[in-house]
Amino acid sequence: MRTIDWDNKKNSIIMIDQTLLPGEYRVIECSTIESLCEAIKSLRVRGAPALGAAGGFGIALAAFKSSASSLEGLMKDIESAGKTIIATRPTAVNLSWGVNRVIRSVEDARNIKEARMFALDESKAIADEDVKKNKQLGEYGASLLDDGDTVMTHCNAGKLACVDWGTALGVIRSARAEGKDIRVISCETRPLNQGSRITTWELMEDKIPVTLITDSMSGHVMRKGMVDKVIVGADRITQDAVFNKIGTYTHSVIAKEHEIPFYVAAPVSTFDFEHLEEEIEIELRKPDELKYFGNHQIAPLSVEVYNPAFDATPMENVSAIITENGVFYPPFLLEEVKIRV
Amino acid sequence: MRTIDWDNKKNSIIMIDQTLLPGEYRVIECSTIESLCEAIKSLRVRGAPALGAAGGFGIALAAFKSSASSLEGLMKDIESAGKTIIATRPTAVNLSWGVNRVIRSVEDARNIKEARMFALDESKAIADEDVKKNKQLGEYGASLLDDGDTVMTHCNAGKLACVDWGTALGVIRSARAEGKDIRVISCETRPLNQGSRITTWELMEDKIPVTLITDSMSGHVMRKGMVDKVIVGADRITQDAVFNKIGTYTHSVIAKEHEIPFYVAAPVSTFDFEHLEEEIEIELRKPDELKYFGNHQIAPLSVEVYNPAFDATPMENVSAIITENGVFYPPFLLEEVKIRV
Repeated sequence: MRTIDWDNKKNSIIMIDQTLLPGEYRVIECSTIESLCEAIKSLRVRGAPALGAAGGFGIALAAFKSSASSLEGLMKDIESAGKTIIATRPTAVNLSWGVNRVIRSVEDARNIKEARMFALDESKAIADEDVKKNKQLGEYGASLLDDGDTVMTHCNAGKLACVDWGTALGVIRSARAEGKDIRVISCETRPLNQGSRITTWELMEDKIPVTLITDSMSGHVMRKGMVDKVIVGADRITQDAVFNKIGTYTHSVIAKEHEIPFYVAAPVSTFDFEHLEEEIEIELRKPDELKYFGNHQIAPLSVEVYNPAFDATPMENVSAIITENGVFYPPFLLEEVKIRV
Repeated sequence: MRTIDWDNKKNSIIMIDQTLLPGEYRVIECSTIESLCEAIKSLRVRGAPALGAAGGFGIALAAFKSSASSLEGLMKDIESAGKTIIATRPTAVNLSWGVNRVIRSVEDARNIKEARMFALDESKAIADEDVKKNKQLGEYGASLLDDGDTVMTHCNAGKLACVDWGTALGVIRSARAEGKDIRVISCETRPLNQGSRITTWELMEDKIPVTLITDSMSGHVMRKGMVDKVIVGADRITQDAVFNKIGTYTHSVIAKEHEIPFYVAAPVSTFDFEHLEEEIEIELRKPDELKYFGNHQIAPLSVEVYNPAFDATPMENVSAIITENGVFYPPFLLEEVKIRV
């Protein structure tokens, strides 16, 4: 199933609970705004595109669960739910984008039934568009991969970060769909191990051969000739740098050293060419992420920790950026990207 | 106290139990060969130089605990104990080296009392020599560090890998002893986290400022100008490469990219200039190290894992090698090293 979807029979949201992976695969149902908010807060669903769909479906859920007897009352319920949903992860722009897009779609409704129908149609459209974009991106990216390639990736830019298919992993899925034999090396991605917990899991589900390594092994495997291409996702692409999960920059330097293509796969919505790297503040996460694994203590509790969530890879280390509008090559000119975007 | 030592009152071995760190600091006593072997097998004591001392003290322990009434009987007990100790970690060359050196020292003994005295003197000499070598190495290395430097290190080349002082961390201790303000960035060192568990702990014990990062952050911190020098230890130095904990090569490439000196600190016993990199087989460790943290599952249990214990850093990435005989600069010529060694 998709990462997040609508249950037409129960009129509720269903999603894969990502906090239980890889130990357990469980599909959970969110039939109230409260349970949806809990799921978003606890990262049962995460990843920018998936959160866009979660926001959209959340408004549809609010419309269906509202007990208002007037259209006006329903709109109030929807708007209140939207605020509650957005507040769960205030910095996730896609979440509020999904919420607001579906709220807008309801504005022309003439009655409660129509409002529910509009909200559901729009939220399903968000989900469908995400899958469509990823498949387009995947097809463009697949042209860069050769039969027999081993692709190294970092973190999870897969279907579980999106509604389906994925960006970096979507390129791999598309190449395999074309009949190319593609293998994957997944870096575990410290400190939260999205690579070992989620990327390996979703590739294995799709029977795509994957080998797990620690992040620090990327130098060794590239030097040994075990990697043909690197593909990573992106959280934000400024004029001069690609922001992505911490560790991405390190891999880009190693790839350059060994003349291995380093590709970034991201939808055009990730581009932020109005800004430069130096203007972007990198989120510092909790020290505990490096002091514990589950309940297992792995560092002195009073040790000083530096834990940036992202790093910036300068454009000169990027061989190409794969989007749903095509593949961009350096120099990544603002004008060109703007026109093509 | 030292990592491993002799208790003169009880005639037994005492050591810091490294498996409990950083959660608990506990000094354990090994008063039998069985308990010593268990401690070595369980990595309560680890690190090549520390194992040399463990082997030596083990023979002294065997001499003191033997109930033989003749010198011949005592020698048999000692040799039997030596075999048992060596078998605990058959590939650890320092362990058998320590065992055999102390056994040889006993050969000239004329009675049981003398045999015990010789064994104890020799094993204490091994421990003392290790500390002395590290302090010499540290002094040579300290000349490479400037007041105010931040030094990044990987894994644990500290006092807990040796009898005391350490190699890479010994250089930092010596520089601080000279009054230089040196700070450390410790990479956590996946998959066994010697950096987060042991290096941070021993530096904090000595009140040396240390910041913990994930291995993948080395690129980010070097690009941000947060690192002045990198110092790592070594497990083996061939003519063309430095073998050290997996991840070392990655750091060396990043350091080169940012023109940051990359130093290796290792005693001359680590040199193996008779061999080339391609002749050395890299130990592959258990996949479970990447699937579990304690009891916490972090990857699908059936995922394929590549888990080399070491990597090789080619000499062109090494700025200097710091030994107890001085600092070597490239080109690391076999003749020069042989003469100076």
